Amino acid sequence: MSGIARTNATGGEGMLPELLTWSTSLEHDRRMVREDLLGSAAHVTMLSRTKLVDVADARALRDALLAMYAAAEAGTLAIPDGEEDIHMAVEAELGRRLGAVAGRLHTARSRNDQVALDLRLHVRAEAAAALRRATELVAYLAQRANNELETLIPAYTHRQRAQPTSVGFLLCAWASSLYRAAETLGFALSRCDALPLGSGACSGSSLPIDRKLTSYLLGFSSPTINALDTVGDRDFALDWTWAGARVLLALSRLCTDVIDYSTSEFSYVKLDGRIAAGSSMMPQKKNPDIFELVRGQSGKGVGNVMAMLTLVKGLPSGYNRDLQEDRRPLLETGPLVRGALDAVGLALPHVHFDGVRGAAALTDGSTQATDLAEALVRRGIPFREAYKAVGALVRHAVDHNMPLAIVDPAIAATFHPALDAAALEALDPAAAMRAKGSIGGTSPAAVSEQIEVLSGAAERLAAIAANTPTLATLAARIAGEPLEPA
Amino acid sequence: MSGIARTNATGGEGMLPELLTWSTSLEHDRRMVREDLLGSAAHVTMLSRTKLVDVADARALRDALLAMYAAAEAGTLAIPDGEEDIHMAVEAELGRRLGAVAGRLHTARSRNDQVALDLRLHVRAEAAAALRRATELVAYLAQRANNELETLIPAYTHRQRAQPTSVGFLLCAWASSLYRAAETLGFALSRCDALPLGSGACSGSSLPIDRKLTSYLLGFSSPTINALDTVGDRDFALDWTWAGARVLLALSRLCTDVIDYSTSEFSYVKLDGRIAAGSSMMPQKKNPDIFELVRGQSGKGVGNVMAMLTLVKGLPSGYNRDLQEDRRPLLETGPLVRGALDAVGLALPHVHFDGVRGAAALTDGSTQATDLAEALVRRGIPFREAYKAVGALVRHAVDHNMPLAIVDPAIAATFHPALDAAALEALDPAAAMRAKGSIGGTSPAAVSEQIEVLSGAAERLAAIAANTPTLATLAARIAGEPLEPA
Amino acid sequence: MSGIARTNATGGEGMLPELLTWSTSLEHDRRMVREDLLGSAAHVTMLSRTKLVDVADARALRDALLAMYAAAEAGTLAIPDGEEDIHMAVEAELGRRLGAVAGRLHTARSRNDQVALDLRLHVRAEAAAALRRATELVAYLAQRANNELETLIPAYTHRQRAQPTSVGFLLCAWASSLYRAAETLGFALSRCDALPLGSGACSGSSLPIDRKLTSYLLGFSSPTINALDTVGDRDFALDWTWAGARVLLALSRLCTDVIDYSTSEFSYVKLDGRIAAGSSMMPQKKNPDIFELVRGQSGKGVGNVMAMLTLVKGLPSGYNRDLQEDRRPLLETGPLVRGALDAVGLALPHVHFDGVRGAAALTDGSTQATDLAEALVRRGIPFREAYKAVGALVRHAVDHNMPLAIVDPAIAATFHPALDAAALEALDPAAAMRAKGSIGGTSPAAVSEQIEVLSGAAERLAAIAANTPTLATLAARIAGEPLEPA
Amino acid sequence: MSGIARTNATGGEGMLPELLTWSTSLEHDRRMVREDLLGSAAHVTMLSRTKLVDVADARALRDALLAMYAAAEAGTLAIPDGEEDIHMAVEAELGRRLGAVAGRLHTARSRNDQVALDLRLHVRAEAAAALRRATELVAYLAQRANNELETLIPAYTHRQRAQPTSVGFLLCAWASSLYRAAETLGFALSRCDALPLGSGACSGSSLPIDRKLTSYLLGFSSPTINALDTVGDRDFALDWTWAGARVLLALSRLCTDVIDYSTSEFSYVKLDGRIAAGSSMMPQKKNPDIFELVRGQSGKGVGNVMAMLTLVKGLPSGYNRDLQEDRRPLLETGPLVRGALDAVGLALPHVHFDGVRGAAALTDGSTQATDLAEALVRRGIPFREAYKAVGALVRHAVDHNMPLAIVDPAIAATFHPALDAAALEALDPAAAMRAKGSIGGTSPAAVSEQIEVLSGAAERLAAIAANTPTLATLAARIAGEPLEPA
Repeated sequence: MSGIARTNATGGEGMLPELLTWSTSLEHDRRMVREDLLGSAAHVTMLSRTKLVDVADARALRDALLAMYAAAEAGTLAIPDGEEDIHMAVEAELGRRLGAVAGRLHTARSRNDQVALDLRLHVRAEAAAALRRATELVAYLAQRANNELETLIPAYTHRQRAQPTSVGFLLCAWASSLYRAAETLGFALSRCDALPLGSGACSGSSLPIDRKLTSYLLGFSSPTINALDTVGDRDFALDWTWAGARVLLALSRLCTDVIDYSTSEFSYVKLDGRIAAGSSMMPQKKNPDIFELVRGQSGKGVGNVMAMLTLVKGLPSGYNRDLQEDRRPLLETGPLVRGALDAVGLALPHVHFDGVRGAAALTDGSTQATDLAEALVRRGIPFREAYKAVGALVRHAVDHNMPLAIVDPAIAATFHPALDAAALEALDPAAAMRAKGSIGGTSPAAVSEQIEVLSGAAERLAAIAANTPTLATLAARIAGEPLEPA
Repeated sequence: MSGIARTNATGGEGMLPELLTWSTSLEHDRRMVREDLLGSAAHVTMLSRTKLVDVADARALRDALLAMYAAAEAGTLAIPDGEEDIHMAVEAELGRRLGAVAGRLHTARSRNDQVALDLRLHVRAEAAAALRRATELVAYLAQRANNELETLIPAYTHRQRAQPTSVGFLLCAWASSLYRAAETLGFALSRCDALPLGSGACSGSSLPIDRKLTSYLLGFSSPTINALDTVGDRDFALDWTWAGARVLLALSRLCTDVIDYSTSEFSYVKLDGRIAAGSSMMPQKKNPDIFELVRGQSGKGVGNVMAMLTLVKGLPSGYNRDLQEDRRPLLETGPLVRGALDAVGLALPHVHFDGVRGAAALTDGSTQATDLAEALVRRGIPFREAYKAVGALVRHAVDHNMPLAIVDPAIAATFHPALDAAALEALDPAAAMRAKGSIGGTSPAAVSEQIEVLSGAAERLAAIAANTPTLATLAARIAGEPLEPA
Repeated sequence: MSGIARTNATGGEGMLPELLTWSTSLEHDRRMVREDLLGSAAHVTMLSRTKLVDVADARALRDALLAMYAAAEAGTLAIPDGEEDIHMAVEAELGRRLGAVAGRLHTARSRNDQVALDLRLHVRAEAAAALRRATELVAYLAQRANNELETLIPAYTHRQRAQPTSVGFLLCAWASSLYRAAETLGFALSRCDALPLGSGACSGSSLPIDRKLTSYLLGFSSPTINALDTVGDRDFALDWTWAGARVLLALSRLCTDVIDYSTSEFSYVKLDGRIAAGSSMMPQKKNPDIFELVRGQSGKGVGNVMAMLTLVKGLPSGYNRDLQEDRRPLLETGPLVRGALDAVGLALPHVHFDGVRGAAALTDGSTQATDLAEALVRRGIPFREAYKAVGALVRHAVDHNMPLAIVDPAIAATFHPALDAAALEALDPAAAMRAKGSIGGTSPAAVSEQIEVLSGAAERLAAIAANTPTLATLAARIAGEPLEPA
Repeated sequence: MSGIARTNATGGEGMLPELLTWSTSLEHDRRMVREDLLGSAAHVTMLSRTKLVDVADARALRDALLAMYAAAEAGTLAIPDGEEDIHMAVEAELGRRLGAVAGRLHTARSRNDQVALDLRLHVRAEAAAALRRATELVAYLAQRANNELETLIPAYTHRQRAQPTSVGFLLCAWASSLYRAAETLGFALSRCDALPLGSGACSGSSLPIDRKLTSYLLGFSSPTINALDTVGDRDFALDWTWAGARVLLALSRLCTDVIDYSTSEFSYVKLDGRIAAGSSMMPQKKNPDIFELVRGQSGKGVGNVMAMLTLVKGLPSGYNRDLQEDRRPLLETGPLVRGALDAVGLALPHVHFDGVRGAAALTDGSTQATDLAEALVRRGIPFREAYKAVGALVRHAVDHNMPLAIVDPAIAATFHPALDAAALEALDPAAAMRAKGSIGGTSPAAVSEQIEVLSGAAERLAAIAANTPTLATLAARIAGEPLEPA
C-alpha cells in the first residue's frame, strides 16, 4: 500500500499479472472516489498554505480535483480498470489532465494514511445517513403509537399471552429497542472524528505540514494522535459494522413480531398488498417477505462484524496489507443497513393493526389475574392476601373450565369479600391496560410519556446526523479556502 | 422466569427433576447474589415509602437483606443448591429468617425485571473495574514512553522495516489503540444506566410505585422507558461483551509485537525471568507465554460476542427464557478482561527494550531514504526533484551492494548538488527520528505531546470509572434512606 | 507448555505468583485427568517394549497410573491445586507414590504432544456420546412419526399455512434435519482418529519409539503425519465445536416450531406439566421453557465455534501457548450438546399433538387449492388448464368470502367441467395429505418410507458411536498388554 | 419464493416498486443461471417420461433450455433486470422464445425446491473446483519438500527457536494442515449429494413424478428424504462456508510463517520480484502482500460462516424468505477460496528458502540440547541421567556465555563420561535433524514417508473432485436422455 506504483518503482519484471489482478482493491475502492478526491483537494490546499507546493500548482491541482469531484457527483467520472487502487487511479487521471504537476500531490502523504482517510470519510457519511433513517423510524413508531393508545393486544412472555397492553405500548417497545441501536450508530459516528492524513507511511513527516488545517477542511475535530497507530487502525470500521449489526438485530426482533402477528393464528396485523402477496393458488395468503428478508439480513450484518474482528486479530502494529480486506464488510454495511431501514420504513405504514383480534385474545380474563390482585391491593388489601384470594379464584375457574371474565361476583365474593363486581372490572382488558400507570407502563398517559421521551431522544440523535458534514459541504469549504500562505 | 416457584404454583407433579436441574441458572447466578440483595433492599425501601408495605415489615426485610449482603461481602453467606435461580434462593433464605413477611418483597415485581436489574448492576461494576484497569494501562504506557523518547526502533509496515522511530513512539501507538478500546468500555458502562425494576413481568404495574426513587437508590440516572422492551432487552450485555472483545483484540496486537520483538531474530525486547521461563534443556529460551495467552484469549472474547448476537437474533418481543443463556458470556467477560489487563499490566514492567538492537536494525540507512528526500525538500528543493535524486542514489547503493549510510558524499553529490554531507546526516536514524515533528510524528517533542494527550484522556476516562457507584456505596445509601412515607 | 516445571527448571526467581496462578490451565484440565492417565499408561507400555524403560520400572509406573485411573473413575482421586497443568499435577502425584522413577515417563515425550493427545481422547469420547444421543433422538422422532401418519397439521411457508400434511411428516422433517447434524458429529469423531503422541515438542524423537503400538493401545488408526503440524493442530477441536453448534442450531429450529405450536394461537401441541408450568396467577399458562433454553443455547454453541476460529487465525506453525485457550470452548461443548439433546429427548414425550386443531386449521380448503389442481392433472387435464380453472374458482370463493371447502359443485363446474364433486374431494385435507405420494411427500406410505430410511441411517451412525473405544476399553487393553520387549 | 409472479397472481396493485427492487435476488442469482437451466432441462425430461408433459412440448422446452445453457456457457445469454429472481427471469425468456408452452415447466415444481437445487448444483461445482486446487497445493508442497530434505531451518515453539529441522519437514507440516482443510472441502462436497427437486413448495406432489430419474440426470445419488425439511435446509451451504473458512484459516497460518520468515530479521525465505515489490525509495524492501492479503481474507471466510449460522438460527421449519440471504455468503465463498488457493499456488514457487540462514540460526547448539541428551540415551545411558548431565552442561555453557556447539569435549566429559566428541556431534544441527527418525519426525527418511503419505492422500481426494460431474457432463447426459415414456 505504501510507495508509488509497483512496476515502475522496482524496474524489475514486476508482479505476476494474475496476482496483480487478484490483489487490486479498485473494484471496491471505486465507491470511495469522491472521498479520495476531496481528501486530495484538502491536502493540496494545506500544502500550498505551508509553502510545500507553489500556489499556482496547488490551484491547478485543486481545480482539477474539484472538477473530478463534480463529475463523480454527476456520475460522469470515468475510472478505468487497471490500476492497483483508487489512489493510483486518481493520480493517473490527474496526470492525464495536468501532466507532471500531478506528482506534487504526493508530498508528505502515503497511500497508508490516504486510505485511512477515505475509509473514515465514507463511514462518517454512511453512519450519518443510517442514523438519520433510524431516528426517523423511531419517530415514526412513536408517532404512530399515538394513534393506538387504546388498541388492545396481549403482551407475551415465553410466546404465551401474558398481560393486556395496547398496540401503542408495543410500538414504543419496538421504538425503544431501535433507539438503542441508533445510539450505537451515534457512537460509531463519533469514532470517525479524527483526521488520519499526515501520518505518512507510519511515522509522520519531517515537513512543516499543518494537520489542524486539513482537519478543519475535512470536518474533523482534530488529527489522530499517533501515526503508527493510525495507519494500522480500523477500529472505526469495527464500530461501524457493529452498529450495523445492532440495527439489523433490533429489526430482526421487530420482524419476528410482525411475521408472527400476521399469521392466520395470531392475526393481530394485516399486511396489505403493497408489501405482501400470495400465489395464484392462494390469494388470501399474505407472505411477510419484507420482514423475513430484513430478519435474514441480520446474518449478513453479524457476518461483517466477524469478518472485521477476525481480520484484525493478532496483527502486528503498523500497516499490514491484510487490512485491505476491510473493504467488503465496511462498504457493504452502509447499503445493507440503509436498505433494511428503508424497507421497514416503507412497509410499516402497510401493516394494519386489528384491535378486535387483540381484544378477543384477552376476553377470557386469565391474562388479567395479576391486574385483579393489584386492584385489591390498591383498595388496601395486603399483597399476600390479595394474591392468595385471586389465586384461589383462578383455580376455581380453571377447575370449572370457565373463563375468569364471566365468573359470577357472588361466587367471587366467597373467595374474598373485596372481590365484588367493581373489583372484577379489573378483568376487563381495557381497564387493566389503562390501570398500569407506572413509568414505562401501559396506560395511555404512561405511553404518551414514552412517546414524548422517544420523540425527543430521536430528535437529539437526528440532530447529530444532520450536523455531520456532507461531502458537498466539505467540497464548498475546500473550494473557498485561500491557497496563499499567511 | 415469571411467577413464583413452579412446583408449588401449579400443584401438579411439576417439572421432571432432571430438567429442573438442567434448567437452573443458580450455578451462574450465585455471582450476582450481592446485586440481587441490594436490588431487593432498594425495592422494599421504595415499597415502604409508597405505603405498599408497612414500615415495620419493610424495616425487617431491609435489615435482613442488608445483613445478608454484608455476609455475602464477607464470604459467609450460604446459598444452598436446589432453587431454580438466585431470586428464589434469596427469597427462600429470607423466608427461613423472617417467615411469611418475606413474601411482601414480591409486590410489584417479577423475576423478569429483577434479573434485568441484577445483570445491569453486575455489568456496571465489572465495566467500571475493567475501565479502571484499562486506563491505568494507558497511563502506564504513556508514562513509560517518557523514558524512551530517544530509544531507537524501526517501525514496520508489512512486517518489513520501514522507518526509524523511537520506542516511546511505539508505546504511544499501543496506548492509543488501548485507549480506543477503553472508550468502548466507557460506552458499555453508559449503557447500563437505567433502572429496569418496576417493569414487572412485561407491562409495568397498576400500583403507585416510585421508579425514580428506586433509580436514585441504585445509582441509575432514570428508569427504563418501556416495560415490554425492558424485560427482553440484553443490549447492555451485547455492548459489554463487545467492549470486552475490543480490549482483548487491542491487546492481541500489542502481544504480537511483544512476541515477535522478543524472538532471537528481532530481539528488541528482553523478557525477564519473572514473566518468562525456558526449559531445563534450553535455559536461554524465554517464552512469552503471558502474551501468547492474552492473544489467545481474544478468541474467547469474540466467542462471547457471537454467543450474545446469536442469542438475541430473531427473538420475539417480551421475555423469553432463551435469555437465561446470556449468563455465561456476560459473567465470563469481567474476569476474562480484568485478567488479561492485569496480566499485561504485571508483565510489561518486565519487558525491557534494547535500544542498541533497535539502532542496529537501522544502520544501513535504507529505512531513512524518505527522510533524506524530505531533508532536501526542507532545504527548498522541489519535492519531485528531491525524490528523483534520492531514488537514483538508492538504486546506485543497491546496485553496488553498499549500505546507503556509508555512501561517499562526493558520489552522492553527483546525483544532486544538495546531497552534501549535511544533507546525508538525515541518514542517521536518530536524526531522522527527531526530524519528524508533525502532530503524531516521532520527534521527542511530538511524542511528548502524545504522552500528554493520552495521559489526560486516560485520566478523564478513569474519572468516569471512579464515579460509578460501587455496591458498597449503594448499600450505604439504601441503609440511610428513610422508610417512612412523606 | 514444553519443558519441565518452570521454577525448578530455571533456578531463577521464577514467574510472578499472580501470573502463575492466572496462567494455569489446571482448573479446566482436571476434566481430562483420566485421558491423561491412560495416555501415560500407554506411553510407558510402549517405552518398555522398545527398551527405553526397564520392564520393572514400567510395570510400577503402569500399575500406579492405572490405579490412579481407577480412582479417578471412582471419583476418589485428589488432584491438588498449585500445579501448572494436569500433566505436571499427575507427574507430581506419581512422584509422591513412586519417587524418582516417575521421571522416566517423560522419555520421548513433551507436554506439547501430551496435551494434544488428552484433548483428542476427550473429544473422541464426547463426540461419540453426543452422536449416540443424537441418533437416539432421530430414531425416537422417526418411531413416533409412525403413530402420527394420519394426524393432520398444516405445513408452513413464510410462517403462513401452506399445505395439508401429517404430524408424522413434520416429525420426519425434524428427524432429517437432526440426522444431518448427527452426520457432522460423525465427521468430528473421525477427525480425532490419529495419535499425536511421539511428536515431542515439535519435531519427533531420535529414540526408537513405536508410535504404531501406542496408536493401537489408545485406539487410533494411525499416528499423525508430521510432528510440527501435530503440536500446533487444533482442527479436531474446531470440527468438534462446529458439530456441536450444528446440533444446537438444528434443535433451535425444532424448538421454534414447538414454541410456536404450543401458543394459544397455534395450539397444535400441548406441553404437559412435567416439562412446563405456569405461574400461580396463570395456571393455564404452559411456558415452553425447555425449548426456549435449548434454542438459547445455540448462541453458546456458535460462540464456541467463533472462539476457536479466532484463536487459530494467523498463528505461526508449531506450538504457541495461545492454544491453551482452546480449553474452555472445547470442554464446554460436550456438556452443552449432551445437555441439550437430553433435555429435548426428555421433553418430547411430554409434547402432545392435537390433530383436531391441525385439521381445523385446514378446513376452509384454501391450503388445498394446489391439491385440487393436481387432482385435475391426474385426471388428464393439462396442467395450465387445471391451474387456470382452479385459480378462477379460488378467486370466486375469495370474492364471495366463502371457504373453498364448501363451494357448491354446481358452481365449481361452471369453472371447469372436471370440477365435479369427486374432484372437489381433493379439498378434504386428509385426502390431500394422502395423495402426495412422491418420494419425500406426505402420504402415509411416503412417510413410512422416510421413517425406514431415517431409522436405518440413524442405526448406522449409532454403530459408529458404539464402536468408538471407551476409556474403560482402553484401560483394559493397556492393562493386558505385555511389557516385555519381543 | 413460492407461487408464480406476484403482481399477476394477485391482481392487486402489487408490491411497492422500491420494495420489489430491494427484495430481488436476481443480481446474485445470475451466477446460477446455468444451474437453473440444466435443472429445468432435467425436470422437463422427467415430466415427459412420466407423461406429465407431451413429448413434443418437452422436446421444445428442453431444446430451448439447452440452447440457453450453451449461450450462457458462451457468455452470450442476456438475462435482463426486472424479474424477481433467476427462475422468473428464465421462465420469462422461455416465454419469449416458446410462448405459452413455457408454462408447462412449472408442473410439479415450486421455486422453493428449484432454488434449493440451483444452490446445490452451484456449491457442488465450486466445492469440487476448490478441492482440486487444494489437493494440487498439497501435492506441490509435498513435491517441493523432496528438494529440501536437507535444508536446515529451526522449528519454533512460542515463536522461539526450538529444534533443528529441515525445510522439507516444514513444507510437510504446511501440507498436512492444508490437507485437513481439503478434507473438510470433501465433506462439504458430499453434503450436496441429494436432489431437492420434487419437494414442491413444502410437501411433495400428488403427481406421479420420478425423482430418481431426475437424480440420475443431475448426478445426485438419491432424492432428499423429506420435502418440508428440504425446502428449509441450507446445511450444505453452512458446510460449504465452513470448509471455505477452514481452507483460509489453514492458509492464514502458512502465510504468517512466510511473512515472518521473509523479514530481514528471520530471512529464511526470499520473495522474488514476481510476487513482491518495494517502493521507489526502498527497492530492497520486498513486501509479502500476497500472503498478507490471503491471511486477511480469512476474516471474510469466517464472516461468511457467521452470516450463515446467524441466518438459520431459530427459523421455523419449511421455507422462509429469510433464506434468500444465503446468497451472498454462499456465492462469495467459491471465488474467495479459489482466489486464495490460486494466489498461494502462484506465489509459492517464487518463495525461495535460504538454507544458509537456517543453518546459521542453529549454530550455537542450544536448540540441540535435547538431541544431545537423546544421543546419550541411545547409547544406553538412562534417561534421567542423560538429561541431568546435559542440563548441567547447558547451564555451564550459559554461565560462561559460550555457545554449546563449541564446548570443549574435555570439559563436557567432566559432566558425564559419555559426553565425548562423538556424542557432541549430536550438537551438529544437520546430525540432529537427521537423527529424528520417528514417524512424523525430521529425518530425510521420515520426511520422505510423509511426502508419500501426503501425495497419496491428496491424490485420493483429487479423484473425488475429478469424479464430481461437471455442468458440461450433465448437459450432455440430459441431452442424450430419451423423452418418450417407457
